[in-house]
Amino acid sequence: MTEYIAPVRDLRFALCELDGFEALRALPAFAEATPELVEQVLDEAGRLAAREIAPFNRSGDEEGAHFENGVVRAAEGFADAYRRFVEGGWAGLDLEPEHGGQGLPRALATATGEMWNAANMAFALCPLLTHGAAELIGRHGNAEQKALYGEKLVSGEWTGTMCMTEPQAGSDVGAARTRARPENGHYRLSGTKIFITYGDHDMAENIVHLVLARTPGAPEGARGLSLFVVPKFLPDVDGRPGTRNDIRTVSIEHKLGVRASPTCTLAFGDGEGAIGTLIGEENRGIQAMFTMMNSARLAVGLQGVAIAERAYQQALAFARERRQGRRLTDGAPAVIIDHPDVRRMLMTMKAHVEAMRALALRVAIDIDLAAHHDDAETRARRQRRVDLLIPVVKAYCSDTGFAVASLGVQIHGGMGYIEETGAAQHLRDARIAMIYEGTNGIQALDLAGRKLLGDKGAAARAYLADVEVLEEQLGAAGLDAIRAPLARARETLARASDWLIETWAGAPGDAAAGASDYLRLFGLVASGAMMGESALAAARRLAEGGADDAFYHAKLATARFHAATILPGATALLDPIRAGSDGLDALD
Amino acid sequence: MTEYIAPVRDLRFALCELDGFEALRALPAFAEATPELVEQVLDEAGRLAAREIAPFNRSGDEEGAHFENGVVRAAEGFADAYRRFVEGGWAGLDLEPEHGGQGLPRALATATGEMWNAANMAFALCPLLTHGAAELIGRHGNAEQKALYGEKLVSGEWTGTMCMTEPQAGSDVGAARTRARPENGHYRLSGTKIFITYGDHDMAENIVHLVLARTPGAPEGARGLSLFVVPKFLPDVDGRPGTRNDIRTVSIEHKLGVRASPTCTLAFGDGEGAIGTLIGEENRGIQAMFTMMNSARLAVGLQGVAIAERAYQQALAFARERRQGRRLTDGAPAVIIDHPDVRRMLMTMKAHVEAMRALALRVAIDIDLAAHHDDAETRARRQRRVDLLIPVVKAYCSDTGFAVASLGVQIHGGMGYIEETGAAQHLRDARIAMIYEGTNGIQALDLAGRKLLGDKGAAARAYLADVEVLEEQLGAAGLDAIRAPLARARETLARASDWLIETWAGAPGDAAAGASDYLRLFGLVASGAMMGESALAAARRLAEGGADDAFYHAKLATARFHAATILPGATALLDPIRAGSDGLDALD
Repeated sequence: MTEYIAPVRDLRFALCELDGFEALRALPAFAEATPELVEQVLDEAGRLAAREIAPFNRSGDEEGAHFENGVVRAAEGFADAYRRFVEGGWAGLDLEPEHGGQGLPRALATATGEMWNAANMAFALCPLLTHGAAELIGRHGNAEQKALYGEKLVSGEWTGTMCMTEPQAGSDVGAARTRARPENGHYRLSGTKIFITYGDHDMAENIVHLVLARTPGAPEGARGLSLFVVPKFLPDVDGRPGTRNDIRTVSIEHKLGVRASPTCTLAFGDGEGAIGTLIGEENRGIQAMFTMMNSARLAVGLQGVAIAERAYQQALAFARERRQGRRLTDGAPAVIIDHPDVRRMLMTMKAHVEAMRALALRVAIDIDLAAHHDDAETRARRQRRVDLLIPVVKAYCSDTGFAVASLGVQIHGGMGYIEETGAAQHLRDARIAMIYEGTNGIQALDLAGRKLLGDKGAAARAYLADVEVLEEQLGAAGLDAIRAPLARARETLARASDWLIETWAGAPGDAAAGASDYLRLFGLVASGAMMGESALAAARRLAEGGADDAFYHAKLATARFHAATILPGATALLDPIRAGSDGLDALD
Repeated sequence: MTEYIAPVRDLRFALCELDGFEALRALPAFAEATPELVEQVLDEAGRLAAREIAPFNRSGDEEGAHFENGVVRAAEGFADAYRRFVEGGWAGLDLEPEHGGQGLPRALATATGEMWNAANMAFALCPLLTHGAAELIGRHGNAEQKALYGEKLVSGEWTGTMCMTEPQAGSDVGAARTRARPENGHYRLSGTKIFITYGDHDMAENIVHLVLARTPGAPEGARGLSLFVVPKFLPDVDGRPGTRNDIRTVSIEHKLGVRASPTCTLAFGDGEGAIGTLIGEENRGIQAMFTMMNSARLAVGLQGVAIAERAYQQALAFARERRQGRRLTDGAPAVIIDHPDVRRMLMTMKAHVEAMRALALRVAIDIDLAAHHDDAETRARRQRRVDLLIPVVKAYCSDTGFAVASLGVQIHGGMGYIEETGAAQHLRDARIAMIYEGTNGIQALDLAGRKLLGDKGAAARAYLADVEVLEEQLGAAGLDAIRAPLARARETLARASDWLIETWAGAPGDAAAGASDYLRLFGLVASGAMMGESALAAARRLAEGGADDAFYHAKLATARFHAATILPGATALLDPIRAGSDGLDALD
């Protein structure tokens, strides 16, 4: 496996050189987030990712997580890497200073998150879940919960999980049956949860489970679910891990990828019931979980970006070294990057990576603005944009990450099919991001059914108007080769949006059948728009003169490539979106 | 893993109820291939595939092939299944009767081949390679070689391999270095071959390697390669396996998929040299191999069809059983097949499977006609069609097979990522077909650079003219919903073909950069045309009245679905094809 090289330059570009960063820096909360600080943080994170985390990616995949005698043990190197990660203060980079976090922008944490995942996705899942748990307790926990668990999670000293899924309750979370009965100021939980990422391990001295369960007499469905903090070890009077709670690790899964990430089945309450405390109010658990959903979905979309970057680096290195055949131009012996078809695949990978990266970071900036802007209307507007684009980022970037990883395998030829090469691991790892945190089909329904329909297209139209403004800027800058395909794609999206809004009322089945293609179309426009912005920024820098000309020239060429070869796919999606249920009856 | 159900009804439809079968039956060679015989053969093959071969697919994947003490041992059940396969006479179904074959059409053998591969692709690779070796010796071997090896390979009693690849010679076969020096009427070979499928195993008492090597003083490159028969055991005077030849199994690969198929590194001539005999003339080895190329590439494309069918069956069974959520229509508890997005995915799988199956079988029929028609002009015309479509079948069906297997994983949700479910195995198995037997990039260059350019578009134009005739028939039959998208796709293909022909001369790099998208476009048109033919045939049957109405209604609906949701992707490929090298310099 090729070494991981942290893509700090392009992260810095997407974070600091596109629209949005100035607005972020204007926030009092982030006054200290200068480009210099950003660069320093990215450099340090990149070093940690490349030197301490990436080296255990391939070995972790080979070894997998261990389950012996009821206990999970992490793959070699993982515990040490995690200790360094915690010591570096990375776990709470963007969390509230009053809980021990560093209070830096979510956008910056997102950029570091790409690097953790690119270095070692199976490893990165542990801090990813822990971050979510820390954020949730910080937002919804009571003072005691914050004191007992909050800071330990913010620092990463203890890790966190989300326990939602049960055998009969996958996408349909509301079908969960785990029970919680009140007893002396706490609750006793019993039930079985499956697919619990890092549900058990030996990388930290305690694990804090956030568990959805049903109290006595609670209503059916999601409206009857409450959320509980259920630690592996109950904190003692000093807040240290004390008595073992009634939680048993039943098994871990044998998975296609992210094999070093233990995916656990946990049995709560084999005995008297696992002791937990309620977060917020009874029957409001799903709402608390939902406030975390945008974070979690952004993080999963980002995994698509991360694996795509890693797969690209590996394929590029191989293509530069592998000698095979002769050049079309002069018949000289070739390395395979000389072959136009290989080059096209590499450029497709690169263009997708850069477009997705810019998109994910833009949404992260919007999350920061929605949380911290001093103008309520701006906060609300940014939040609407976030809500609209989150399912797009989650599904489009995970779909595309998998496709890019597959191109990476292809460039390696036969070597790509051999596990030792490492290209196949990226393909296997990438596949899960399309499934968890709401399958991509669920994302599509969220986008088309809730986000688009919920405000009758207002947020989508506001977004499309912004893209139109961008098109004008591209035209004015002489970048018509990008403007024209973007305009065609944007017009297609507008028509598809109108059709969906019209169709939901009378024929929801027809609308729902087109939802996945609609999301794909939205993703093409959104990533194409980010490449348009990138091209504008690059052209501006080149006009100003100065350093890094090669970087900006490459950025312009990559944006042109994206517009010429990737964006045209958008127009072809209109007919499939509008095909409705035609032919679906062939399954009866 | 769901049981495999042999899709005999649809195989019979694609084989006997579309255009082409009548022409096949009119050949004296195949007079006995009645629809009744075809049905009987398919039924029997389906039983063997489902009962004796499929049960070892999942276990074979888990267990893998074994390599211990220099010897390869097949996974449990494989040797028995292979014995039954050989006893049933399946190995030589379509091979020449004078060599012990049954002389049935290639098209029928192709239909059975889909079932072997769907049942257990890792298993099916052994007869696939053996069939190729038998055919090659039958065509190019001398009398002694035919006597010693031909019949044993036709019966499957011995198995065969193709030894082409070396560490420095992958796609560039001409870079091979294995040497062969003449000695007393035979040759002594020395060199290392890699990626040798079933290069060693214990399922048959002898293995016949076909090895490309270089004789003393041979020219550089592919023109200096000769082909040799090099058996694992040299036949004794009675033709039984005698002395062990100087061939050592160095290792087997740890692969992403087809794990029960041993992929070997073989060292020829550690000692005095492995004894082999020359096939045909010196320096003509690559030509002999090339005459087998169409067979091998059809077989690999067929693997894409096979895995797609298997993945579809598994996803369909899951979607019918898995309860989750509520129906959009009436709010009743749903099985997931009720959800429009899941249904759309299943229909996409089904439509791809049926379109690809019909396409692969059509090409197989053309191979039969090209070989056996009594009119030389017809033979030549059919051969041109085969040559044109073979790279399309190989690459489009393997690409699509992988995409379909990925949809299969997606429909399973989290369960799809767990290896025990079996959906992930299909994804892993399918991935190799895009790589071996010439990567899909090589197929694209073969199509765009050799097949299209070689006759300045004559064969492609003849094909497009046939599609136009089909469009007229569709229009006349009132099937405009299929005709119109097919016409748009066909026109796009015509324009892309013209552009490629014009561009190769002056800017081969631009043309080559668009080759993969061109092949994908060709595949969409070709598979769309087969669904158009299928719809016509189904409409005809329904008009005639009679049995099987449900089947024909479903076929029509599937064809409409293909035209409405898959064919529209064709038009979007024109711009990417013509994008040329724009932006490719961003990699420098």
